[in-house]
Amino acid sequence: MSDFELTTQNRVRRIPARGHYDKAVIYPIIDEALICHVGFVEDGLPYVIPTIHARSGDKLIFHGAKASRMMKQIASGATICVTFTLLDGLVLARSTFHHSMNYRSAVVFGQGRPLTDETEKMAALEVLTEHLVHGRWQDARQPNAKELNATAMAELTIASASAKIRTGPPGDDDEDYALPIWAGVLPIQQQYLPPIDDSQLSEGLFAPEYIVNYRR
Amino acid sequence: MSDFELTTQNRVRRIPARGHYDKAVIYPIIDEALICHVGFVEDGLPYVIPTIHARSGDKLIFHGAKASRMMKQIASGATICVTFTLLDGLVLARSTFHHSMNYRSAVVFGQGRPLTDETEKMAALEVLTEHLVHGRWQDARQPNAKELNATAMAELTIASASAKIRTGPPGDDDEDYALPIWAGVLPIQQQYLPPIDDSQLSEGLFAPEYIVNYRR
Repeated sequence: MSDFELTTQNRVRRIPARGHYDKAVIYPIIDEALICHVGFVEDGLPYVIPTIHARSGDKLIFHGAKASRMMKQIASGATICVTFTLLDGLVLARSTFHHSMNYRSAVVFGQGRPLTDETEKMAALEVLTEHLVHGRWQDARQPNAKELNATAMAELTIASASAKIRTGPPGDDDEDYALPIWAGVLPIQQQYLPPIDDSQLSEGLFAPEYIVNYRR
Repeated sequence: MSDFELTTQNRVRRIPARGHYDKAVIYPIIDEALICHVGFVEDGLPYVIPTIHARSGDKLIFHGAKASRMMKQIASGATICVTFTLLDGLVLARSTFHHSMNYRSAVVFGQGRPLTDETEKMAALEVLTEHLVHGRWQDARQPNAKELNATAMAELTIASASAKIRTGPPGDDDEDYALPIWAGVLPIQQQYLPPIDDSQLSEGLFAPEYIVNYRR
């Protein structure tokens, strides 16, 4: 039994062997992704907006400005699609046809609700901040009442989801392996360079360990 | 005059100063991005699918399997939203409220049509392959008639678009600059590691220069 039932909505149709329906596979992709792409429908038209997210159990947390179209849509309870994509490599086959990418992606569907209670919003902002930079919430100046009020927040309950993953070397047609064409994988990873101090930094302040050694 | 008219569809509402409507700003983001997220509406529900793209003038090119829901939607002529996102850094302010990211994103709307003519498909596949790895098309074994037939292709004419860009250091409230909290930017970039030879590589073949020194 998968955690998420296979439906016409979430079923991976192309290369079904790459499809996964368990939280143990899907949730780590959501947690590793720095951002996601939120899809919604307005006046019958599709919109895809990149944004920061965080996961708390079976819920996704989002924040934005009060006037944000995306935040209104998430809070409305309409079905939202949220997609997470991690690129792991370029797959260079001998044939152009078998060129591909190594990746881990997750597609989630669900309905949201606004977070309006101050305690609830504060807790959700902590989860969002910690998703971005673990350790930052305790160090930074936390939101005051005015900031909290200016921030629209919503949580989306994950109702359906799937992951699609490709790993490994290229898969060429048998007769192509003898061709004098280089084939292999060019691995991709997100690299974090040394932090740049703000030019107005007070004297004697240094980037904390969780920044210097930042990893996901 | 902007290249793309500001409408309710493409206007950047949150922090309008970050909005751009010129091809000279939007197209380099599309060209640098390895992949995009395609949004479409089916039975009133939103779908967001990550995929490889390429740009040719004012058109975007996509390919996929014949049965692909995304490819059918793009070819149908329905309005599609395609979003491109490049992450450049984590922006760590003194206040959690002013935490942000440095990024360059582009949101495109348009209508597609199927590519069915063999010559047209071949030309589009060359553009797609070269978008992924410049120099690869001449080296790899090019598509044969069977592969060409198995590949669904479509082009989407860009009708409306905008970019949103954030750069630079955090912007804190005046009274927060004196706080004993480190602030700055953690730069992010996509890193390409040394290529991994396919284990079935013929003897005497080495990764070509355009792979070893791969950049976007």
